[in-house]
Amino acid sequence: MNQSAVLPPWVVLDPLLHGWLLEDIGRGDHTTQSLITGKNEFGQANWIAKQNGVIVGLPIAARVFYLLNEGTSFTPIVGEGETCHRGQLVARIDGSLDTLLMGERVALNLAMRLSGIATLTNQYVEKIADLPAQLVDTRKTTPGLRLFEKYASRLGGAINHRLGLDDAVMIKDNHIAAVGGIAEAINQIRYKIPYPLSIEVETTTLAEVEAAIEQDADIIMLDNMSLESMCQAVQLIRSHQNQIKIEASGNVTLETIRAVAETGVDFISSSGPVTRSSWLDLSMNLEKSTSD
Amino acid sequence: MNQSAVLPPWVVLDPLLHGWLLEDIGRGDHTTQSLITGKNEFGQANWIAKQNGVIVGLPIAARVFYLLNEGTSFTPIVGEGETCHRGQLVARIDGSLDTLLMGERVALNLAMRLSGIATLTNQYVEKIADLPAQLVDTRKTTPGLRLFEKYASRLGGAINHRLGLDDAVMIKDNHIAAVGGIAEAINQIRYKIPYPLSIEVETTTLAEVEAAIEQDADIIMLDNMSLESMCQAVQLIRSHQNQIKIEASGNVTLETIRAVAETGVDFISSSGPVTRSSWLDLSMNLEKSTSD
Amino acid sequence: MNQSAVLPPWVVLDPLLHGWLLEDIGRGDHTTQSLITGKNEFGQANWIAKQNGVIVGLPIAARVFYLLNEGTSFTPIVGEGETCHRGQLVARIDGSLDTLLMGERVALNLAMRLSGIATLTNQYVEKIADLPAQLVDTRKTTPGLRLFEKYASRLGGAINHRLGLDDAVMIKDNHIAAVGGIAEAINQIRYKIPYPLSIEVETTTLAEVEAAIEQDADIIMLDNMSLESMCQAVQLIRSHQNQIKIEASGNVTLETIRAVAETGVDFISSSGPVTRSSWLDLSMNLEKSTSD
Amino acid sequence: MNQSAVLPPWVVLDPLLHGWLLEDIGRGDHTTQSLITGKNEFGQANWIAKQNGVIVGLPIAARVFYLLNEGTSFTPIVGEGETCHRGQLVARIDGSLDTLLMGERVALNLAMRLSGIATLTNQYVEKIADLPAQLVDTRKTTPGLRLFEKYASRLGGAINHRLGLDDAVMIKDNHIAAVGGIAEAINQIRYKIPYPLSIEVETTTLAEVEAAIEQDADIIMLDNMSLESMCQAVQLIRSHQNQIKIEASGNVTLETIRAVAETGVDFISSSGPVTRSSWLDLSMNLEKSTSD
Amino acid sequence: MNQSAVLPPWVVLDPLLHGWLLEDIGRGDHTTQSLITGKNEFGQANWIAKQNGVIVGLPIAARVFYLLNEGTSFTPIVGEGETCHRGQLVARIDGSLDTLLMGERVALNLAMRLSGIATLTNQYVEKIADLPAQLVDTRKTTPGLRLFEKYASRLGGAINHRLGLDDAVMIKDNHIAAVGGIAEAINQIRYKIPYPLSIEVETTTLAEVEAAIEQDADIIMLDNMSLESMCQAVQLIRSHQNQIKIEASGNVTLETIRAVAETGVDFISSSGPVTRSSWLDLSMNLEKSTSD
Amino acid sequence: MNQSAVLPPWVVLDPLLHGWLLEDIGRGDHTTQSLITGKNEFGQANWIAKQNGVIVGLPIAARVFYLLNEGTSFTPIVGEGETCHRGQLVARIDGSLDTLLMGERVALNLAMRLSGIATLTNQYVEKIADLPAQLVDTRKTTPGLRLFEKYASRLGGAINHRLGLDDAVMIKDNHIAAVGGIAEAINQIRYKIPYPLSIEVETTTLAEVEAAIEQDADIIMLDNMSLESMCQAVQLIRSHQNQIKIEASGNVTLETIRAVAETGVDFISSSGPVTRSSWLDLSMNLEKSTSD
Repeated sequence: MNQSAVLPPWVVLDPLLHGWLLEDIGRGDHTTQSLITGKNEFGQANWIAKQNGVIVGLPIAARVFYLLNEGTSFTPIVGEGETCHRGQLVARIDGSLDTLLMGERVALNLAMRLSGIATLTNQYVEKIADLPAQLVDTRKTTPGLRLFEKYASRLGGAINHRLGLDDAVMIKDNHIAAVGGIAEAINQIRYKIPYPLSIEVETTTLAEVEAAIEQDADIIMLDNMSLESMCQAVQLIRSHQNQIKIEASGNVTLETIRAVAETGVDFISSSGPVTRSSWLDLSMNLEKSTSD
Repeated sequence: MNQSAVLPPWVVLDPLLHGWLLEDIGRGDHTTQSLITGKNEFGQANWIAKQNGVIVGLPIAARVFYLLNEGTSFTPIVGEGETCHRGQLVARIDGSLDTLLMGERVALNLAMRLSGIATLTNQYVEKIADLPAQLVDTRKTTPGLRLFEKYASRLGGAINHRLGLDDAVMIKDNHIAAVGGIAEAINQIRYKIPYPLSIEVETTTLAEVEAAIEQDADIIMLDNMSLESMCQAVQLIRSHQNQIKIEASGNVTLETIRAVAETGVDFISSSGPVTRSSWLDLSMNLEKSTSD
Repeated sequence: MNQSAVLPPWVVLDPLLHGWLLEDIGRGDHTTQSLITGKNEFGQANWIAKQNGVIVGLPIAARVFYLLNEGTSFTPIVGEGETCHRGQLVARIDGSLDTLLMGERVALNLAMRLSGIATLTNQYVEKIADLPAQLVDTRKTTPGLRLFEKYASRLGGAINHRLGLDDAVMIKDNHIAAVGGIAEAINQIRYKIPYPLSIEVETTTLAEVEAAIEQDADIIMLDNMSLESMCQAVQLIRSHQNQIKIEASGNVTLETIRAVAETGVDFISSSGPVTRSSWLDLSMNLEKSTSD
Repeated sequence: MNQSAVLPPWVVLDPLLHGWLLEDIGRGDHTTQSLITGKNEFGQANWIAKQNGVIVGLPIAARVFYLLNEGTSFTPIVGEGETCHRGQLVARIDGSLDTLLMGERVALNLAMRLSGIATLTNQYVEKIADLPAQLVDTRKTTPGLRLFEKYASRLGGAINHRLGLDDAVMIKDNHIAAVGGIAEAINQIRYKIPYPLSIEVETTTLAEVEAAIEQDADIIMLDNMSLESMCQAVQLIRSHQNQIKIEASGNVTLETIRAVAETGVDFISSSGPVTRSSWLDLSMNLEKSTSD
Repeated sequence: MNQSAVLPPWVVLDPLLHGWLLEDIGRGDHTTQSLITGKNEFGQANWIAKQNGVIVGLPIAARVFYLLNEGTSFTPIVGEGETCHRGQLVARIDGSLDTLLMGERVALNLAMRLSGIATLTNQYVEKIADLPAQLVDTRKTTPGLRLFEKYASRLGGAINHRLGLDDAVMIKDNHIAAVGGIAEAINQIRYKIPYPLSIEVETTTLAEVEAAIEQDADIIMLDNMSLESMCQAVQLIRSHQNQIKIEASGNVTLETIRAVAETGVDFISSSGPVTRSSWLDLSMNLEKSTSD
Repeated sequence: MNQSAVLPPWVVLDPLLHGWLLEDIGRGDHTTQSLITGKNEFGQANWIAKQNGVIVGLPIAARVFYLLNEGTSFTPIVGEGETCHRGQLVARIDGSLDTLLMGERVALNLAMRLSGIATLTNQYVEKIADLPAQLVDTRKTTPGLRLFEKYASRLGGAINHRLGLDDAVMIKDNHIAAVGGIAEAINQIRYKIPYPLSIEVETTTLAEVEAAIEQDADIIMLDNMSLESMCQAVQLIRSHQNQIKIEASGNVTLETIRAVAETGVDFISSSGPVTRSSWLDLSMNLEKSTSD
């Protein structure tokens, strides 16, 4: 893991982070405000991994604390996207005690969720690490967390599929049915979309694969096909022209992914690392700084 | 399950739903807009359960489609919070074809996530169904989804703990350390907070339990105690006065929850149903309406 | 006064302050922009009290100027929540002349409103200062200013009641009527709400008080009762169990508050300090800094 | 009273109303949601005046309930801006019981505040009803409520002064000081501002009045002048040219306003009706509809 | 013209339209509110073309009036994207008189701007209508109007280039310089981006074109090349493999576009239709409905 | 040119700039993030004029880069509102390479649009520079850019007309028709509007001009009159009283403006500089800083 992945600039992400802080703080953290704010107390928070896994979300956690209080200092100990081990110190945060307490839950919740995704993604990726096929993610992401979960997916070793409905065309069975066939669909859409967009077509039969090839689809998705059909489809596509990208999709699990990769597809898409991952357990230990 | 739970009015939730639609649609659903919009095509979408579980999120899904197009009709087949079985029709949505395609992912992603939480919550609850202890949730929720995940938790059979930092006081070790002791903390805070708020104190030793009792804490949390210590703590609290609520917390799993409940605590808090649940698999089958 | 009260972090309040600045500035302060902006002029603004009272709002005023221009320096002379006297210098603000002129009205309007509330609150509080009863505020606050007016109320010496519809349960006559009685209402609600929330019940007769006691309400409100009935209710409640908090409500004025407090209730709620207070008159004198 | 006044379209006001509902409802009205929502109960709410006064805010209250639930019906009984008498039915609202309960506080708080302003404004206006001078309001309004309080002011019988820093020029002593004199200020600003904007100049001496006349100010404000000086200023202005509008300002009260009006000024500005008014007491009685 | 183009759903566009209405209305349309609102007057507005051109923006104009008042009825007379002639009736709007007056400027301004773009785009397109090359637009669009101006561009007959920085990769000289060469750039980026995204490379020499071919760029932009170099580049690309799309860019005008198209490139990008177009003059004649 | 003009404070403008950045960046600048972000590369961007014209928008461009990255330094070389010549260096920006690339398009697009407006405005102004009449702009501005385009107009040498529907009254034919005549309109509105607002009346005949004079309109607009009628109208107005401002409107072009000015009107309003101006061509050359 620890493939590089880069977040959009904060100008894009801050409104989301801001909303999350308001969600947790609401009308105020009565406990902390009553007992600590105004007392000029500082502390050091240590984030400890309670499980092995891939750590993701540290720069975002740093930003959460920064938005609460610009004077907070966040020091990652484990690199973003690196493996951590149970008991390991992951990051250290120095700041005013009330900031540390008010930001804790938002920052940790996000990092735990993202690290969980990266960790499971990495297990999928390891299964096919020696094969040319690449794992890609899907649009099955938690509402509001698309950019973050896609980022975690990258750091776990996967490649991103489209980030939304607007950065690639994906022609599904319902689109095809609405216009009367794959050929009609590709023909109709080719000059309506922004021209750099790729056109991907979902296929379930070899006849559909053939139609997609004929219309020069950029990507052909083999949807829920048997391994045998997939092999045939790959052969069919490669025999015509070698620039079309092939994506396998449907019921991919840790158990099945290797066999799918061996069919020779270029990409294997799976929502599993996002929809079936547990949060990676991280805890925050907080120590009040002693003054003297 | 199917305990009642009620969402806040849409005036509260719509901004979140709106943001989720923008996240997925971005600059537009090029595929659907190019192939379907403007053709006046209608369809029927059927949501099918691919697994057994507890269904949650149907009214929210209905609202998602409504926000896209007020003319969409959403018919729940399985009751909100009811059990569904693999293969069962869960809901039916009638509307314009492009609305159904553009809203699909947001609506399904949310319902799958919430149903997953409710399903696992329900398994925890079943373990202690014959005992007086109640399962409660925590603030470990996905950023931005607090209200929704707490709602799912309720429908899975749990009771909500506080929804944010502002609807109850929770005095933790760091708060205690900052002011010098449990007694000082409770004394300082009692008249600073909105007076109806309950004061909960985290304790890890019997001495701390004793201090909390003396200061009339409303709720005493037994944090990460052994079963034996928990039993002693419960006894100690009950012996003094029977109005203090007792909450057990820490490393509660499907395996351990029953033993914890048998200690006699009133509430058992666990983040497990939220942080360790998979999404419940639901799929949407879409049929174009035939006109004649 | 000068009881401590702490505002939520700026991440919560800034959007409100930002909106207020836009409200006043609109498309620009034509006068100031045309005559002063760009001339690099600095000034010192002195806030002078024109009446005796309790000063509240200085940190918020400071933030208003900061949002306009981070280089502004705000120096409180009177402590937040402290008493000021007519003619006294309350605060001094150093900054660019155009910032001082553009932020003046928003900052002053808020401080005058909040100081007015604290001042009248304090007069109520003084009437019962030697008695155990405490003054509490209500949800009758100016739309949009809830957090600020509740904060002013605290600094005037009152205790906050719930801050919104979500941090405590208040069962009123209409709720009771809808479900058939106080017992039914409390029973129905107890396990639907976040469990740390207190349940308060409005009562107008001794029979209702009795019902609320039997269902272990956390707080019983004696609503618009005669002093005599209040005394009887207090006696009735105390005779059963001494943990229920008692709140008197209805037509409390500076004239009547002491008699109400003498009935032995724990809390007296009144909207009077908010709805009947005048703004405390403050003025801002601005001097251009001389350069040499 | 009952001068006509018209609110901006809802597209302008809805975001404010929406924010107020969120402020009160927060994470939900636990009481009402738990006991009433989902039970399909309807009710009728009657708004009763507890004091004599001028009623303002009914269309806004109607909109508040509409935003919560489009099916709510709001029937004003007293006309907007009309006088009401203690005990009189002011408005009737029919809708679902939970909507009536959740919207009550926001709608009533606003109407009480605005009616209080209109009522006191009207008392000022009555003092000078037979004289040509007109009462005008100021920018001392509650942050966030500018448009609403200005509207109430109109319905109380006053005329609005500028609504913000951008719809008229007001040259104050600090502006004058910054550029070196009234003549310089008017000269510099005349061709920098949107040309239809009026230029008002604050004056405190006859010399300043003279300077403002010479520069063709549109409005001359006589700020904190003695009655005698005001008379002289009025005479001076009228002797030169009769198109300049004259505004008196400073320490206007119910006791002094008539004498000021008798000096012959055109307008008398006072913040008193806004900063010194109490809320007009209104209550809402709610009856559950009986079904049969 | 009148190529089909489809707007994103209103859930995406409404916030922009809403902001434009607030921009124009501000604190209210004093003229219309004072003279017309409340009088229950209705009218009919006719939009008349004052010039020949391509009409774009009618559905958006309809939505602007709808947002102000749901009861407004907008009837397009000329089809969206169709040609209009000077003096022709373009659309008719029936609604309350104050709605028609308050929405006029926003609706017309947008339609005039978009129609101007479509009209000039169409002139570019006509120049090359018989050649295979297609006109594409650029990211030089008015801030805040990207989606609308791209839509107008489509209706004028052009094809959209990428809509933002996120729906295609465009490697420019500075990117190349930063990593050391075209080969390095394409290699580094291929597996970092969402895999369906196309990779376009800006080239200015044949050597760069060669490098881009070798790395299988999806699109090669010939930037500011002479016609002769363009011809050579096209030949070079076509000789290797015929799937790479070729885009010409730089100083394309109505005079030069045909010669560029004749080089055999697939796409010609030009900002001219957006940056050099005048607004198409449209006027609105308003008639008050007569009642009887 | 280079008349002074001052922007409102950033607190007003930042939300617009922020929205523009999001519009362009969307889910991220994949090219720049993949190739440059994280490499700690810095660069210098030079803005070069490709045409002669009036430069406007530099402080706004500076703010755009600042919002992306506070560490960016923007150095204007040509003064805001000053003339630039083809090939001239206009501004220099130093910052991290990815910031320069991500902010380029938004900053340049705005500056090109505004400079284009100022440049054409200036040509209109030059035509009447020796005459007393002043050019004023209109409300025909690009939706969302009102404040910016009005600012550009000022820097081009024009004077602003009203900025929105709320800072002056403009009585048009439809308003007049709705109430029955100019006299009725002015009478009805005079005491309904904020009193400092000017009242402008559109007139098309001398009879209407006469009526407007009689009602003491502040501004009389001569709308689409012949030069001869304009002369008569000016004479008529001046003969009665010399304080009414006279504005000519309708079909003003570079060819006709001088003749209109010679009729003796005070102001000539024209939308031409905004609706008929091309963008001023500016380009950004970016150099990577060399380290050593």
